[in-house]
Amino acid sequence: MVIAELVDNIWATRKSEKMNGLKLMLAEIHGGSRDGERLIVCDVIGAGIGDRVIITTGSAARRMLDDDDIPIDAAVIGIVDESCESV
Amino acid sequence: MVIAELVDNIWATRKSEKMNGLKLMLAEIHGGSRDGERLIVCDVIGAGIGDRVIITTGSAARRMLDDDDIPIDAAVIGIVDESCESV
Amino acid sequence: MVIAELVDNIWATRKSEKMNGLKLMLAEIHGGSRDGERLIVCDVIGAGIGDRVIITTGSAARRMLDDDDIPIDAAVIGIVDESCESV
Amino acid sequence: MVIAELVDNIWATRKSEKMNGLKLMLAEIHGGSRDGERLIVCDVIGAGIGDRVIITTGSAARRMLDDDDIPIDAAVIGIVDESCESV
Amino acid sequence: MVIAELVDNIWATRKSEKMNGLKLMLAEIHGGSRDGERLIVCDVIGAGIGDRVIITTGSAARRMLDDDDIPIDAAVIGIVDESCESV
Repeated sequence: MVIAELVDNIWATRKSEKMNGLKLMLAEIHGGSRDGERLIVCDVIGAGIGDRVIITTGSAARRMLDDDDIPIDAAVIGIVDESCESV
Repeated sequence: MVIAELVDNIWATRKSEKMNGLKLMLAEIHGGSRDGERLIVCDVIGAGIGDRVIITTGSAARRMLDDDDIPIDAAVIGIVDESCESV
Repeated sequence: MVIAELVDNIWATRKSEKMNGLKLMLAEIHGGSRDGERLIVCDVIGAGIGDRVIITTGSAARRMLDDDDIPIDAAVIGIVDESCESV
Repeated sequence: MVIAELVDNIWATRKSEKMNGLKLMLAEIHGGSRDGERLIVCDVIGAGIGDRVIITTGSAARRMLDDDDIPIDAAVIGIVDESCESV
Repeated sequence: MVIAELVDNIWATRKSEKMNGLKLMLAEIHGGSRDGERLIVCDVIGAGIGDRVIITTGSAARRMLDDDDIPIDAAVIGIVDESCESV
């Protein structure tokens, strides 16, 4: 997994029907050698802009949904506690 | 997922039979640390050159088709609204 | 797989229920061209801060758990012996 | 997918039995931020040295074969038409 | 796949039971834009230090074993012939 900051919502009116109702957000990695990398993630746990979140990628992302047919490859699995200062 | 701009169509007359009828496009990532990365994506939602699209990769890409045997690893899942200015 | 050093625990009070009870740690790659890359890994073999560990990624990470529905994409599979000096 | 140029054949007399009879080639990515990256790909559509090909990676590569047990992670899915000048 | 040189054995006395009996080696990529990248690979075909080997990654690596539950994400699938001078 990687830790990234959620920086904005992403809106896509024209999209696959399979994506209906899913919240997508723009995340940016801070620190480490991947600093500045941006990815689009699906959030189903109620994270918001400014949160530092743990993101899982690949087939694991679909495990966050109850439907293996949804075409996402990145999802928020947790929000890092503010007391975690190393990340 | 990543956001990229569709910059051209890709034509391959000689190809696997499994790819018959599928539209392939060249996409280029803008911004972030992957700026300038190019990938070839499959589009089934009617995106066109110049569109900023959300691209899913890996096994998730095959979820955009109704056939898990098609050998694609990247697909367009949505077109970013023009009002989204952060990406 | 990659070898990385475990540098801290990661706490996430707000997280997916599927992640309950799992230990997450911050790992950092030393040496080679990926030097400085950070990733978050799940540990179920009792590794601790300062250990150099072997990390598997992707769908293989879920093989470390007895539940394919848990959304992790990286896990510790072993602790490198101290006598291994090349890594 | 990515586009790369096939630059040589790869010969491996000592290999897994599962790889018997498969043609492997060295491909090199030109242009974009991954310029110069080399990968080894399996070809079953009759591509040759000098061809610019579309390469799929990950589990999708095995979809090019009729056997999901063959341990390849990259395969040629098409040969780019010479008239495609953007890649 | 990628080609890398095997540079050392990796020993991990404390590891997942699923890894018992498997040989792990440190590999390093030479040439191309990934020059210097290190990865840990599983070898079941009898490769040794100094060999240039073809490495498969991701779910394909588990196809080299007869057990899909073993948590590896990289495996040697062949040893490049010495006569191959382009890699």
